Amino acid sequence: MKSSLHRLFARRAEFGALSTKSFRAYSHRQTLQTPLSGAQSISFVKPLFSAVFIAGFVSAVWTHSHSTVHAEAPPAKTIRLAEVRKHGANATRRWVVKSTKVYDITDWIPNHPGGEVILRAVGGVIDPYWEIFTIHNKKDVYDILEQYYVGDLDPRDLVDGRVPSDDIEDPFKNDPARHPDLIVHSDRPFNAETAPEDLKSYITPNSNFYIRHHLWVPSLSQDDYKVQIELPDGEEVEYSIKDLKSKFRSTKVTCTLQCSGNRRQHMNDEARSTSGLPWEIGAISNAVWTGVRLRDVLADAGFDIDTFDENETKHVQFQGAEAYGASIPIDKALGKREDVLLVYEMNGEPLPRDHGFPLRALVPGHVAARSVKWLKRITLSDEESQSQWQQRDYKCFGPNQGGQDVDWSSAPAIQEMPVQSAITSLRNASPRSAEDQKLLRVYGMEEDAVEVEGYAFAGGGRRIVRVDISPDDGRTWHQAELLPDEAHGSKSWAWTRWRWLVPKRLAGRQFVVKAVDEGYNVQPESYEPHYNFRGNLTSGWHRVPYTKGRRDSKE
Amino acid sequence: MKSSLHRLFARRAEFGALSTKSFRAYSHRQTLQTPLSGAQSISFVKPLFSAVFIAGFVSAVWTHSHSTVHAEAPPAKTIRLAEVRKHGANATRRWVVKSTKVYDITDWIPNHPGGEVILRAVGGVIDPYWEIFTIHNKKDVYDILEQYYVGDLDPRDLVDGRVPSDDIEDPFKNDPARHPDLIVHSDRPFNAETAPEDLKSYITPNSNFYIRHHLWVPSLSQDDYKVQIELPDGEEVEYSIKDLKSKFRSTKVTCTLQCSGNRRQHMNDEARSTSGLPWEIGAISNAVWTGVRLRDVLADAGFDIDTFDENETKHVQFQGAEAYGASIPIDKALGKREDVLLVYEMNGEPLPRDHGFPLRALVPGHVAARSVKWLKRITLSDEESQSQWQQRDYKCFGPNQGGQDVDWSSAPAIQEMPVQSAITSLRNASPRSAEDQKLLRVYGMEEDAVEVEGYAFAGGGRRIVRVDISPDDGRTWHQAELLPDEAHGSKSWAWTRWRWLVPKRLAGRQFVVKAVDEGYNVQPESYEPHYNFRGNLTSGWHRVPYTKGRRDSKE
Repeated sequence: MKSSLHRLFARRAEFGALSTKSFRAYSHRQTLQTPLSGAQSISFVKPLFSAVFIAGFVSAVWTHSHSTVHAEAPPAKTIRLAEVRKHGANATRRWVVKSTKVYDITDWIPNHPGGEVILRAVGGVIDPYWEIFTIHNKKDVYDILEQYYVGDLDPRDLVDGRVPSDDIEDPFKNDPARHPDLIVHSDRPFNAETAPEDLKSYITPNSNFYIRHHLWVPSLSQDDYKVQIELPDGEEVEYSIKDLKSKFRSTKVTCTLQCSGNRRQHMNDEARSTSGLPWEIGAISNAVWTGVRLRDVLADAGFDIDTFDENETKHVQFQGAEAYGASIPIDKALGKREDVLLVYEMNGEPLPRDHGFPLRALVPGHVAARSVKWLKRITLSDEESQSQWQQRDYKCFGPNQGGQDVDWSSAPAIQEMPVQSAITSLRNASPRSAEDQKLLRVYGMEEDAVEVEGYAFAGGGRRIVRVDISPDDGRTWHQAELLPDEAHGSKSWAWTRWRWLVPKRLAGRQFVVKAVDEGYNVQPESYEPHYNFRGNLTSGWHRVPYTKGRRDSKE
Repeated sequence: MKSSLHRLFARRAEFGALSTKSFRAYSHRQTLQTPLSGAQSISFVKPLFSAVFIAGFVSAVWTHSHSTVHAEAPPAKTIRLAEVRKHGANATRRWVVKSTKVYDITDWIPNHPGGEVILRAVGGVIDPYWEIFTIHNKKDVYDILEQYYVGDLDPRDLVDGRVPSDDIEDPFKNDPARHPDLIVHSDRPFNAETAPEDLKSYITPNSNFYIRHHLWVPSLSQDDYKVQIELPDGEEVEYSIKDLKSKFRSTKVTCTLQCSGNRRQHMNDEARSTSGLPWEIGAISNAVWTGVRLRDVLADAGFDIDTFDENETKHVQFQGAEAYGASIPIDKALGKREDVLLVYEMNGEPLPRDHGFPLRALVPGHVAARSVKWLKRITLSDEESQSQWQQRDYKCFGPNQGGQDVDWSSAPAIQEMPVQSAITSLRNASPRSAEDQKLLRVYGMEEDAVEVEGYAFAGGGRRIVRVDISPDDGRTWHQAELLPDEAHGSKSWAWTRWRWLVPKRLAGRQFVVKAVDEGYNVQPESYEPHYNFRGNLTSGWHRVPYTKGRRDSKE
């Protein structure tokens, strides 16, 4: 029974692209009934298991501790490896071995930030996984694990003092080379932000565009690549890149992508510690994207975009080739002026591998987490994506909420993001520099000045209408000049760059920026009241200290 | 020439409903070339002049002082009335008489909050107007006027010590009676907010719905009422109420309307003085509106709502019968899920006169100022309404901007509004009261408690996803219970009521509320950094003092 099911789904499941319904049914069955051999449970290369077990991996680590240890029975002083093997994915209690110690992590599994990927390791040795997912090498993680200790491995199962570990393939080994100017926050998965100096250009070069991965970068070939569309009636239609390019009108959209964690480090600094990557101001970049309109493709696939049943189809789910998944509301997907694209070009070049080659979704105005890369499957559904990235990670709670007891379903998945701004550069401009003289003249100034530059951006295509800048920590305010960059697209999907020059004598100890969008939404001045334990959507005023006496290279 | 022009436009201009282009041409001509007799310039009942001269009236008073007096020549000690008459609407310098004094208000006219309605009075005596527009009876206004003093009237023109004033009709005399529970901010025009106890019901009764008028309430008959639609090619189509009801499917929308000045008084109190009516928390109310979809009517009128020329038609202008005008972007007007209606029923009753009888626009999710009452004309145009309510009054500037030198065109007209919330009730609940016992039991409490209730609301149809409430001035936070009221409509156009019960022992000196919308927009904690001189869009955290020892009637 198991192996025929296995073959059945494996055939349909290239790159983890099972249909939603069958995926759920199969996943459920596997978890509850199918015993796994050690070899199967650790195979990264078997695509079926990518789909079944990898509900995901985030680079965040849960820092909240878990205090109860609840084992089936008092632990034996030593435990045989064969006994550990019995506590695999389908056992009531699930064990792992780390080095020579055995842990019953059953109660921890629901809280694993990486989701059910952890089931790959239960019933066996966890060390080779942690060598790949290096994010685990933190004291916090070891502390959590230690709470679940149940005993030591029997020395008879050790060779040279350790368990001969199963050979697993490193899925990151084919990740592309990256630009050295990116500021790296994690290697596996790769996460890196754009350096401040590279945030100054309106269009971010592909090589400097920030990278936010949840898993590895799939190695895909454009020639045999197909994206599958599953309609509400279960019918499936697929398109090659060539199909997309030849059948539909290509569209260009200038669109800024921003991670929900952009500026998380400011929340850590100004309020309290959060979990997640410590992004500064560079988890945001801007590009011109070329692709075809999702609404055109859905219409061509046979979906009636004007008169569909609104109870049957409420969401469009995107599934990436590496297992990442997310969804957006159907109105966003179909809106004529919402500009949701299937993208194959970035700044005039084929999509780089790090940005979704050969095809990604682009959901302008929404958190970048919905613009799924390496897009393999599009499903029209009455429900959101059930991935952890839709159901858990990309949400926001109150300053008092968090940890073990949070009701994830009580907050909506982040889609549109609030208004945001940051100072990317603060430098002295002197009339003694020939270059600065020109700039000063534009502002009608002849004295020493401070030049401030930055970006402002709002979700939902809401235009930035005003940027207020203070040279003295919010005591006085001025309006920055908004640069008139030209963008493609039906709404304001791209950031607004701004600049301001202030006489040096007016500068205090700290510069501050805050922006206003066309819905007249504003940024809050502080962090603690908007603290959320995942550190998402940090949008408190950006403050940058200024030392009056300092001289920079231009002076 | 003048009189034939007069007749020509008077015929087309019932209730001031000239076509946009002809209106502008005629208005221009009148201002520059047509000499006005005193009788014409003060006639409220001549509809043509309503259109030409009443660019509007707001009940706000400009509190910023104006310091330069700039008269044509040194004033004569006394001035003859005939000389004053020469300084009318078409003169280079424009004078008015107040009591026995003459003022050259030329330089003030551009700053008049009521706009060009002031031109009705120049070249003559201003007293009868001020008796009607009683809003002028403030020291601020007299102070401004005094700066423009140029001389005294010649005693030969006085009878019993005053100028025999022209007889003008009181346009407010047919205003309807109002509910005594409304909290009145001005009588003429009538402006009154809903009392806190009436803000507690989800649907505000018609009689208690807040009223915000800029002029008088027109007396209109439903039987001969027609709304005119002007298409981009200049063609006009008109519909009676009967036409609208019989030709189009009626639609119900539950929609909260909020004045941009709601909570302005909190800005006055917490930051600085603003101009405008001192609304507390009650310039907001909620109703079920019945009408027909504007997009259906426009399509029927011959406008191609799918493939119109986007350069030719960018805005839909609404003109009210009393001369008020405003506009909304074409995308809002046509959006399938934007629910813009032409409304003839409010909470199941014919529209009350105070709320636009027999027909008004309803623009859900936008500032109420765009939901034009007594709707007479709808114009599809490449430009916004040129009314002061579109071009000036309903805008927002930075905390440092304001007064004489503000560039009105630098800020967009307010359409969608930012997230907002308020505490409508704060009371002790005691286990010693039988009624309170029930409530306490719901929250699993058996001790003295404080019950807090309120509303939260966001623009753009963005749902309220969380309400944070603090019993101790923001030190600790809790999540209020969001009441599950049912609404009609494609998006969240109605406010969310919320409630929370806290043990009395946790209550500090001040309760605070802040809300979050589905775009995760937040409210700012303070007022001064978001000060704007008109006091619009006040959305700082609402703080309500609490006295622990107090007993209320229920205790």
